[in-house]
Amino acid sequence: MEKPQRNWDTKRVQKAQRLAKISQLMTGKYVETDQIITVLEALIAPGDKVVLEGDNQKQASFLSQSLEQVNPEKVNNLHMIMSSISRPEHLNIFERQIASKIDFSYAGAQSVRVAQMIEDGKMKLGDIHTYLELYGRLFIDLIPNVVLVAADKADKAGNLYTGFNTEETPTIVEAAAFKDGIVIVQVNEVVDELPRIDIPAGWVDVVVPADKPYELEALFTRDPQNITELQILMAMMAIKGIYAEHGVQSLNHGIGFNTAAIELLLPTYGESLGLKGKIAKNWALNPHPTIIPAIESGWVESIHSFGGAPNMGHNPGGRRHSTPAWQSLRDEEKPLGKGQKLVVQMVETYGSNKKPVFVETLDALAVQEQASLANAPVMIYSEDTTHIVTEEGIAYLYKATSKEQRQAAIAAIGGVTPLGMTSTKESLDQLRQAGIVKLPEDLGIKRSDAKRSLLAAQTIDDLVEWSDGLYQPPMKFRTWS
Amino acid sequence: MEKPQRNWDTKRVQKAQRLAKISQLMTGKYVETDQIITVLEALIAPGDKVVLEGDNQKQASFLSQSLEQVNPEKVNNLHMIMSSISRPEHLNIFERQIASKIDFSYAGAQSVRVAQMIEDGKMKLGDIHTYLELYGRLFIDLIPNVVLVAADKADKAGNLYTGFNTEETPTIVEAAAFKDGIVIVQVNEVVDELPRIDIPAGWVDVVVPADKPYELEALFTRDPQNITELQILMAMMAIKGIYAEHGVQSLNHGIGFNTAAIELLLPTYGESLGLKGKIAKNWALNPHPTIIPAIESGWVESIHSFGGAPNMGHNPGGRRHSTPAWQSLRDEEKPLGKGQKLVVQMVETYGSNKKPVFVETLDALAVQEQASLANAPVMIYSEDTTHIVTEEGIAYLYKATSKEQRQAAIAAIGGVTPLGMTSTKESLDQLRQAGIVKLPEDLGIKRSDAKRSLLAAQTIDDLVEWSDGLYQPPMKFRTWS
Repeated sequence: MEKPQRNWDTKRVQKAQRLAKISQLMTGKYVETDQIITVLEALIAPGDKVVLEGDNQKQASFLSQSLEQVNPEKVNNLHMIMSSISRPEHLNIFERQIASKIDFSYAGAQSVRVAQMIEDGKMKLGDIHTYLELYGRLFIDLIPNVVLVAADKADKAGNLYTGFNTEETPTIVEAAAFKDGIVIVQVNEVVDELPRIDIPAGWVDVVVPADKPYELEALFTRDPQNITELQILMAMMAIKGIYAEHGVQSLNHGIGFNTAAIELLLPTYGESLGLKGKIAKNWALNPHPTIIPAIESGWVESIHSFGGAPNMGHNPGGRRHSTPAWQSLRDEEKPLGKGQKLVVQMVETYGSNKKPVFVETLDALAVQEQASLANAPVMIYSEDTTHIVTEEGIAYLYKATSKEQRQAAIAAIGGVTPLGMTSTKESLDQLRQAGIVKLPEDLGIKRSDAKRSLLAAQTIDDLVEWSDGLYQPPMKFRTWS
Repeated sequence: MEKPQRNWDTKRVQKAQRLAKISQLMTGKYVETDQIITVLEALIAPGDKVVLEGDNQKQASFLSQSLEQVNPEKVNNLHMIMSSISRPEHLNIFERQIASKIDFSYAGAQSVRVAQMIEDGKMKLGDIHTYLELYGRLFIDLIPNVVLVAADKADKAGNLYTGFNTEETPTIVEAAAFKDGIVIVQVNEVVDELPRIDIPAGWVDVVVPADKPYELEALFTRDPQNITELQILMAMMAIKGIYAEHGVQSLNHGIGFNTAAIELLLPTYGESLGLKGKIAKNWALNPHPTIIPAIESGWVESIHSFGGAPNMGHNPGGRRHSTPAWQSLRDEEKPLGKGQKLVVQMVETYGSNKKPVFVETLDALAVQEQASLANAPVMIYSEDTTHIVTEEGIAYLYKATSKEQRQAAIAAIGGVTPLGMTSTKESLDQLRQAGIVKLPEDLGIKRSDAKRSLLAAQTIDDLVEWSDGLYQPPMKFRTWS
């Protein structure tokens, strides 16, 4: 076997060469705020894989705005990896031909523009990933050359404090730091002593004080004022018909008003059912202010704020999690039968756009075609969804024994949507008898009891009061001066 | 709504009270080696959830041996959380009634004793988890009171260097440090300056110099000398019939001789097929010395050594990973069809214990009964396994359209096992025609070509030579002085 001669530190040498180009601009690990464009032009090479931190809350906004201003003749053809496309400059860098390819997880408000740019050939799409998949691949086959992240504070040595808004910063930094990638951090503030070191200076290459604090959107704030009585009814059904029924102890909530209503009913309706200490104790939850009353009244034992988003609608294979809830979905007749994570979809039959929520064909297929995706970007597959709650009732989909029965169960709680209209009284009766569908009356819930007065907090002010003034709402949610 | 008065820092106060008990014994964060038993008795309270670091390689052996020696009248009824039960004292602490409950992932050599202790009521079992599940729950509902971990080096301030054997140390430390748990670390060495800070001192409460370095077992070392020609044949089939067929680029290997043979055939057989640069580039792999020739000959672009073990046999729902391999398993006829991760089981039809590998009933069911488990501890479920390779051929299970066809395909490559004997020539012919089973001849592989001379390294010495002396094999693998 003849062994070819190889240079084993190409990546390390390349990193050192790039950093040497800016040595005149550096004081320790620091560069001046107004030098950042020069720095980016020196450290980022054409074709690089670049991670730009920006999830649905926290944005490395100074660095993204700076990246937009680099000279496309020096920096171009970048392969961007971003969990969320949320700011205009995230797309402007493609317009300016600084970047040409993207892997991402969420586009939200920018998704129309994204689709158009893909169609126009201005942007080449890797994939629309789950968050976990995207972060995982940073360590495998999307290893970044440069990462651009944000921290709250840095000390003189370059140690970082990411504080309450850590999010995925450590993961992104780690993916680069241990593979000779370059780590560039914008910081809000430089201090002598950090409250805590979250990321050691040794993992960081360049620190730049930002012109202003990174953008932070309080995405998880839901004003209780906007919770409707229909949502309260659905929340009552979820608490009694799902949480109590299955003994759900560890859980995660989406950010809609439906789940906000659940949180706000625990200290009232939940308490009246004697469920305190029995359900909803251990939370994986990003900071939802509507959870405050449940915390203050002693319902919540722990919260883990995960940042980014785990793969919520996904039941991990090989998992053994013999909690009452997981175990309650096990098919006892199969010796190798396994439990299942409960994935509960809460939807009103007509969404806020006045369109029926149950459709023949998902928009995901149109997106797939328009963006020439290899796969339709479905977030949660049918086989993982165990329950659907609408204002009409609950479909216990996991109990359905055929695809047809599953569809009938969805139709039975589909209200006056086209799908709902296909349901017959016979079908509904059969499904209720089999326990596959439950209406409010089957759960002993009176529709007329679903009143806003049941909410533990009816306004943002109430949340502040529950917290003894500890909760400081974002400015746009304040009704007082 | 009346709000009960609550004390919001019970955990922080409790932690401070415990640490105050040993303040006389501490110099900075350090305690003396011979004081550790007193320290453990002061810091661990009856009923605590305690994580003891010990995976299949790295053991916090000084701390586990010390825990075994605490006074059970002071420390008892512990709920241990350990990824691996591997050392005698891991069970002795249950014999001595220091601990009473366990959640774990792997027992290996200790599993007979574990089952007996459960049957005898000396040990109460939480669950046998996947590694990811176990680590995940440290942040949700198995939040530890105390964690006992190991590091290579610490500096005077208590910053830690975990170096090449980081494994799950940072995850365990994080789970405790951010929830007012107590972090106790044994270190091999105290130095003035660390090569790198892996864990900041602020996350650590107590550092103790160990009496000797933590135990480290080179679990992933496979001596090429023991690779058989049958295994080489199977490896050839895997390379040509699976890796080349599906264009597998990102991958993970188990630690058996079957997969060691694959690694060692890449620079020879793989090269002869013109596959270099096309397959097996990005690895998630713990340190397998048999990968050295593939690295040195330029096959490997990256390796991420993950520590612990990801959920290898598990195809994450909602994943979009449109690599050629993942995409090649997509059912094109379904508009919402999705790709699938390839999960390849490589087994000889008769295992090393001379028993048939295909059985009517899994041992997991007996384990479940004996240990009164809520679920049978199956590691990889049938629906996740996409291919099986035996010395007879490959079953492309993902192509089977029914459970019966799946079983027939397994029987067709089942050799002279009882299951294999049920296969008929007609069935085999049909399966070959449908491309569901391929024999070596279908792949253009001659059985007589499967020679040990194909291995890029035939001995441990060869691996050392490939590495230019960089690889230092564990003592027991050395045949020279």
